[in-house]
Amino acid sequence: MCQLLGLNCATPTDAVFSFTGFRRRGGATDTHADGWGVAFFEGRGVRLFIDPDAAARSPMADFLQRYPIRSRNVIAHVRKATTGAVALENTHPFMRELWGRYWVFAHNGDLHGHQPKLHRHFRPVGDTDSERAFCWLLQELDKSHASLPPVPELTATLRELIPHISRHGTFNFLLSCGDAMWAHCSTHLHYRVRDYPFSRATLADEDWTIDFSTVTQPGDRVAVIVTTPLTRDEVWIPFAPGELRVFVDGAPMTDTGT
Amino acid sequence: MCQLLGLNCATPTDAVFSFTGFRRRGGATDTHADGWGVAFFEGRGVRLFIDPDAAARSPMADFLQRYPIRSRNVIAHVRKATTGAVALENTHPFMRELWGRYWVFAHNGDLHGHQPKLHRHFRPVGDTDSERAFCWLLQELDKSHASLPPVPELTATLRELIPHISRHGTFNFLLSCGDAMWAHCSTHLHYRVRDYPFSRATLADEDWTIDFSTVTQPGDRVAVIVTTPLTRDEVWIPFAPGELRVFVDGAPMTDTGT
Repeated sequence: MCQLLGLNCATPTDAVFSFTGFRRRGGATDTHADGWGVAFFEGRGVRLFIDPDAAARSPMADFLQRYPIRSRNVIAHVRKATTGAVALENTHPFMRELWGRYWVFAHNGDLHGHQPKLHRHFRPVGDTDSERAFCWLLQELDKSHASLPPVPELTATLRELIPHISRHGTFNFLLSCGDAMWAHCSTHLHYRVRDYPFSRATLADEDWTIDFSTVTQPGDRVAVIVTTPLTRDEVWIPFAPGELRVFVDGAPMTDTGT
Repeated sequence: MCQLLGLNCATPTDAVFSFTGFRRRGGATDTHADGWGVAFFEGRGVRLFIDPDAAARSPMADFLQRYPIRSRNVIAHVRKATTGAVALENTHPFMRELWGRYWVFAHNGDLHGHQPKLHRHFRPVGDTDSERAFCWLLQELDKSHASLPPVPELTATLRELIPHISRHGTFNFLLSCGDAMWAHCSTHLHYRVRDYPFSRATLADEDWTIDFSTVTQPGDRVAVIVTTPLTRDEVWIPFAPGELRVFVDGAPMTDTGT
């Protein structure tokens, strides 16, 4: 199994506070020490950092903790290998291009017997059930839309596709194309929206309290989506099993239902 | 225009010496300060670092200079923007997946009026002539082979495809799928093979002399391909205009002709 972290933001925001707590779960406060990765959208471009070492001890994670990258969509993952060896090609997030946009995906859970026909362009490079599921999702999105559709249409298509995968096991995932972030829960996923007036927060995995009111502007808003709550003093909203939510500009879209 | 650096190695090798000199051309010893990137193959996986800042002043490049990543195929690029704004999505190298393998591409030169029909899967995300050319190359490779063919077959296909692009301008490029590295010269490209018995080398762009015999094993072999020679005391072989060479296990394949 693994853990997921996503940030969807109204304005470009650095993820250092959340990432600092999250990376500790990669071999320090938790056992997800078989690689980690983080993707930052910046305009249409993506900075993708992947590393088969433990996040808690990774020099590259140390660097990112000191080097704030401002992004409106961030997806991070710490891995505990179940299918697929500990290897760079099996390290989340995965990235592909569709409709002239990069798509980034990370998954928590095991899928059993999900061997879809991948007859179009998207092929897994590594050996994980996760990358295979991502390739199938993109293949089917590609069949359903000739070009990038509006977010609600994409959400509707994903809602039709997800059950074909989730019936094979646990399919908690984060997905983004830079405009929005989709989050699906099979078992464990929580979110919190940080917005004005901002308050204080203390990491659950590290001794760090931040007063967000001192580091934000009134127009900032960030939705943080994570497997288990990142902080000990904020209210986190659990997803229901089977729930898909889409986040845009730092808040859940209200018309997406469950 | 831009500059290119490639390493193709018999054994996983760190690129710190070559990268240290090369990055100086991104805003210190030369004017290519509009972004930089470097891709390291590790097995089938790729670590891709891209940054729209100047390589010579980039904290991420500082980090990579201190953090040796061992790879058998490395492609680096420093950019001087001609087409496409200075933006992450226009920063080389570019990466796509084809036949279940990642492909990495970087280009030096300007192409004029190259507006091929991109009717299959590969679409540019950014605005550069370079990414468009890469997408077309992958589209045509995909049409020509149902799955990953042997290196000589791929080389033969590339030899047919390249003139369709190079007649539009300057098309110096590096391309790798992790097994081999293809290097095409329109105007400026040089290479050198470092192998046993190893000797000393002094960077052209920084005050650093290394004695490779103290840091290598007899089985090591590295082909370094670069726009202009990286060192002041090694013999560099210039490519001829129009020449395509493919490097495998740290040496040029001899059956590829020109």
